[in-house]
Order: sequence, then C-alpha cells, then structure tokens
Amino acid sequence: MSAERSLVMIPGPTNVDPSVLRALAKPTASHVSPSFAATFKRALEDLKKVMMTSGDVFVVSGSGTLAMEMAVANIVESSDKVLVVSNGYFGDRFLDVVSRFTDGVEKLSLEWGKAADPGKIKEKLGQRNYKAVIVVHVDTSTGVANDAREISRVVKDRGALFILDTVCSLGGMEIRVDEWGIDICLSGSQKALAIPPGLAILSASKEALDARAKRKTKVQSYYMDFENWLSVMQDPSKYFATPPVNMIYALAESLEMILSEGLEKRYARHAAIAKAMRSALNKIGLRIVAEERGRADTMTAAYYPEGIDDGAFRSNMATRHGIIVAGGLGQLRGKIFRVGHMGNVAPNDLIATIGAVEASLSQLGYSFPLGEGVGAAIESLRKSYEVR
Amino acid sequence: MSAERSLVMIPGPTNVDPSVLRALAKPTASHVSPSFAATFKRALEDLKKVMMTSGDVFVVSGSGTLAMEMAVANIVESSDKVLVVSNGYFGDRFLDVVSRFTDGVEKLSLEWGKAADPGKIKEKLGQRNYKAVIVVHVDTSTGVANDAREISRVVKDRGALFILDTVCSLGGMEIRVDEWGIDICLSGSQKALAIPPGLAILSASKEALDARAKRKTKVQSYYMDFENWLSVMQDPSKYFATPPVNMIYALAESLEMILSEGLEKRYARHAAIAKAMRSALNKIGLRIVAEERGRADTMTAAYYPEGIDDGAFRSNMATRHGIIVAGGLGQLRGKIFRVGHMGNVAPNDLIATIGAVEASLSQLGYSFPLGEGVGAAIESLRKSYEVR
Repeated sequence: MSAERSLVMIPGPTNVDPSVLRALAKPTASHVSPSFAATFKRALEDLKKVMMTSGDVFVVSGSGTLAMEMAVANIVESSDKVLVVSNGYFGDRFLDVVSRFTDGVEKLSLEWGKAADPGKIKEKLGQRNYKAVIVVHVDTSTGVANDAREISRVVKDRGALFILDTVCSLGGMEIRVDEWGIDICLSGSQKALAIPPGLAILSASKEALDARAKRKTKVQSYYMDFENWLSVMQDPSKYFATPPVNMIYALAESLEMILSEGLEKRYARHAAIAKAMRSALNKIGLRIVAEERGRADTMTAAYYPEGIDDGAFRSNMATRHGIIVAGGLGQLRGKIFRVGHMGNVAPNDLIATIGAVEASLSQLGYSFPLGEGVGAAIESLRKSYEVR
Repeated sequence: MSAERSLVMIPGPTNVDPSVLRALAKPTASHVSPSFAATFKRALEDLKKVMMTSGDVFVVSGSGTLAMEMAVANIVESSDKVLVVSNGYFGDRFLDVVSRFTDGVEKLSLEWGKAADPGKIKEKLGQRNYKAVIVVHVDTSTGVANDAREISRVVKDRGALFILDTVCSLGGMEIRVDEWGIDICLSGSQKALAIPPGLAILSASKEALDARAKRKTKVQSYYMDFENWLSVMQDPSKYFATPPVNMIYALAESLEMILSEGLEKRYARHAAIAKAMRSALNKIGLRIVAEERGRADTMTAAYYPEGIDDGAFRSNMATRHGIIVAGGLGQLRGKIFRVGHMGNVAPNDLIATIGAVEASLSQLGYSFPLGEGVGAAIESLRKSYEVR
C-alpha cells in the first residue's frame, strides 16, 4: 500500500480531511490582507465555540510543547509555587517546562494509568499556597482521562490558577473552559482538531490575564508573551509576528467542519468509537493501560500480550496492513501500543484497525479466536448508535 | 481579479510555487515514520547546502520572531553584555527580545536607511567585552543590506559570538555561514525560501553550541533550548516535539527547487531583478530608502512622492491591479511602500508590478512620463542577462 494510502491511527498527528488539505494548499496571501484577516477572525471565533469560552484565545505558530510553555511562561514567576499533577509522560514534561521559570515546582505523582483523584489534589492544596495547578487532561502516553471539571472545582476553591493541557482532547471530548473555570486551556492542532501539526492553541481567562498584568518581573520570553499577541488575536488585521497563513486556512476549514458536525454529535462519535475499541481489546484479552474510571475517548493504549515484540507488531501493522499505530513512551516503551481514534476517525477506520491488530497479533503467535475483537466492536457500535 | 490570482509582492510571505503547495497538501504522515524521517533528513541536508554550513541546523515550528528569540535564548545569560546593531524595525525588535534575557543589552543605533559601518562596530567592540553581537542582514522595514561578511570579521576578531538575522535574505542572497563565521544564522520560511510562514530556521556553530553547553544558568525556555532539539535534528526519526509535518514537506520541496536552480544562478536572478527595480524607481523619480552602498536584492522600499497617500496607493494597487505591496513599519509608516522581489519572483512579476506602480501613482496625481519605469527595468534586465 502506498505511504499516502496508509491509515494513520497514532494519537496525533491524525488523519486530515482532504478538504482541510485543500484549504492548506491555497495560495499564501498577505498576512495583513483583509481576506486573510477575515479568515483568521472567523477561525478564532469558531475556536471560542469549540473551547466554550467568551475569553481570549491565542493561535500561534508552534507545537503543543510551545503551548505548554506559553501557558506557564505568562503566569509563573521565579518566586511562585506551582503544582504539577502528573500521571504520564506529558505531565512529567511539565516539570521540565516549569523548572525553567521557578524552582518552586512540586509534583503530585501518580502511577501511570491511574486517573488523578481530586480528593488527593485537594489535600495537597491544603498544605500550601500554589499560584497555579497544572493538569494534563488526557496524557497521550497512557490514554488516561483526568476529571478536569472536578479537579478545576478543587483548584478554584483554593484560589489557584488552573492550567489544563487538552492537547489530546480538545475537539474530541467535552471541554467547557468558562463553565469549568479553566484559566489557561492549551492545545495543539494535530489531534482531535484534525489539522497538521504546527499550531499552539490557548485560551486565557480574565484571572490569567490579570496574573500576567500584575507580574513583578518580565515574562521570560518575548515570543510567548500574551501581551504581544493580544491585540492581534482581537483584531487579526494587526501585526505582531507573521501568522502561519496556510495553517490558519486549514484551521478555519477544520473548525467549520467540527461545528457543522455539531459538538455533541462529535463527542458522541468519539465516545462510541472509544467504547467499541475497548470492547474489542477486552474481548481478545488485552489489558488497557488506563484504569476504568478514567479512560479517554480520543485514544486507547493497551499492553502487549506476553511474547509480542513491539517493533515486530508495529512493523507488521504498517507493512502488511498499512495501518500506523504508536508504541509506548518513557517507562512504557516496548510494553504497550497506542491507537489514536480522534478527529476525523470513522467506524470503518476503527474496524480496519482492529482487524489488523488481530491479524498481526495472531501472526506473531498470540492465540485467540480470530474476528472476535471486530465482532465485539461492531456490537458495541450498534448499541451506541441505537441509544442515540 | 480573484484573491487567489493576486500577485503577492510584499517582503514576505512571498508567492509559493504550486509544486510546493501540492507538497504541503500531501496526507499528514506519522512524524516518526521512516518515510517522513527521510524527507525531514533530506530537507535538513539541503538546508545546510543553502546556508553553506557543515554545522548543526534547526527547523522548528514557529515564526521568524521565534527564531530571533531562540538564537538569543541559548547563549545569553543574565550577566552577559550583548550589542544589537540596529538600523530598522527588526533590529529594534532584537532589543526587546534580548531584554528578556539580560539587562546588559546595548544598541548601536543607526539611521534607518543607512548601512552599518563595520568600523563603527569595531570601535564599539573596543570599548567593552560583549558575549554576542546581533545584526539583521536585511531589515525588512528598509531594505538595507548590511555587510555581513565584513561585520563578522570585526566581531570574530574580538572573540564575540556573531548572530545574524537572515530572515529577509537566506535563499535570495549569498550567505556563507561557515566561511563568514556566523555563529547563529537565523531565518524564516516565508521569504526567499518561498514556503508559507511557520518555520523558524537556525544554524549553530561549534562555538555557539559550546557557549550553550558552558552556561552557568538554565536556558530560560524549554521549547527553545538547542539541547532538546539537537538529537532530532541529527536523526529526525527521534522525537522531541511533534514537527510540523506538512510544512516540512513544503520545505523539502522548495529546497530541492532552490538547489536545482543553483545558488549562484538564484542569487544572480535576485540581483538582476533588484537592479531593474531600482532603475525603474530612479527613472520615475522615487527615492529609495536604502542608501546606495547597502541595498538588498530581496526587496526595495521607496518613499512616496509628495502628496501620494499610502492607503490610497496600496488599495489602488490591490483592487485595480491585483498586486499586493506593503506599507511602512514603525517610523516609516505612511511614508514609504515596500516591494518584495524574492523567492520565486520572475521578471514578469516585476514588470507587472512596476506597471501597476506607475499606473497607480499616475492615477493619484503624480506626474511623469508613463512607461519609463518599465522601460528602464527592461533595459536593466537585458543588460544583466547579457553580462552572464
């Protein structure tokens, strides 16, 4: 199968719709032309709808990691205490990021695969005052989904700023920025928003912007300073740094598709597909990394059965079936595989993926009744769609 | 004329070749797939050829402003003295950038439009020790080209690190990173490299990487730290932050076009077109912003004749002729217009632009013998091509 016919089922980048690719390839306009400014403005307005915020949003050229750092850079000063709740690779990455800004970073460390317990966070917050608490909604390394709404309540009760990383959830799972009280919600473009990688996306509450305004020290970065971007994000005909014109075309197109599908329907589609994926894995005896009470709808990670080699499995998936899945990160490298099922994912893609997982496992010597995973997924999808 | 048929003649973003747009729109592959890693590797190797360096290069998701800051962030510590030579808007921007990292920043300020005098820089360097000297090769606000080779000699003689901003020159004017001793050469994607905006591009010499390694304090940013990117740039199958996959496709395609045109021929084309542009402007009595001894081949800025309104002129150019040119930045706003002639620019584009400039000026009441600018440009182009 040609590389371009492959089905990319990793947890980002995800498959980009052909109409979004066509938008990406439109001739590059002047970044200050009225027509581009109008497209950018529409994208920002649509983004607010997806984030469910009436506050300010930022779309900046950069990766999700830049978005992570931009969130921290604007509000954290060297004298601040920050709590990072980590149950995965990207939670741990926040420790590295925050340590560039303050020595006062503490980690509330959880076993990878376990969802964060809001009660434990509350306890920790009772012990000292933190300026900000950082949580990764869905850690791409495990597929655990933390209860952002409940954690936000606990954090806001203590008057701390709440930073939520939704790189692996925004656009595929419900995120209510204003209602839940997320002070900075950050994301990337290449996951459930379903455009290529290259955009750092953030929202900032009034409290977050106030914290930025009341700093005693300069923001440690010029490029990441909200202050420099704010007027452009409020009026995209203004100039700060040249916006990534073609990526903005793609964002505008994808957001239009997302809103025309409808957020509720989109989340239900993600939930139905995730459920079917889990049914299939359970049926063929694979253990899911995320514990049951906190599983993402955007991706699933599963342990290999004993004796299955990571490299052999993924290469079999890619070369024999043209389906690309991801391996483990950090401490889970070699032990698990990860499947992204977000963005434009359709039931057909999932069925094909489960079929290939079954075929590859079987080929590599894992013994089970072939086809039962796919059967369970079909059954689960039918039930989900009957309910609706 | 439809917006997509417009001729974008601003000094970046520039017109992107259809083949580069098609590369941009290829399906987004997994960022760690062998085929993408091979494309990325080839792009990095071709980039080294264009930069004329055997040292390390970095291609990171971000704008040119991120590249400016990344250069500074890696080598400047709070106790360091840095000299910024500024003769334009982007030189001044470096002051803002550097001030996030040290209070020890000094500006060698030159009149906008004047090229930096290496002798003056030498004098300044004799007065104290600077860790680094920053120069913008071509400041997009004026079209002045500084003598990077000569300035580098002066800076290296004093043992300082030399940071050169080639956002508005790399790919259109000769840059010899190793031979000239440029410690960090930085650029963006949307100018003479002729792909859409969204990539920050840098090279780093052994001395620059040594300075990074010998820091007493952490790099103030996680995302900008060379250390985090180095292994990926040396082996793009590795992971740090998700690379902007589709933008890398476009970069690879454009670099291949650049090398297949040949650097010498490409620079000669830029020089011939720039010369023709200046002949035309001289002929119709417009004053060029850059003084004669330091004029860029990638763009030209010119003062309006008395009585010509900036907004009326540019809107006439855009709506009647479908040709987009830029206004002035900072202290030159309203007084000048700027024309980019770099990247894929062809003589036809220039002739059309000059024709539209003549038509618009004439329409707005400036009096001169219509057509003489175009005539001078044709004459100049003929001479340039005869010489070769």
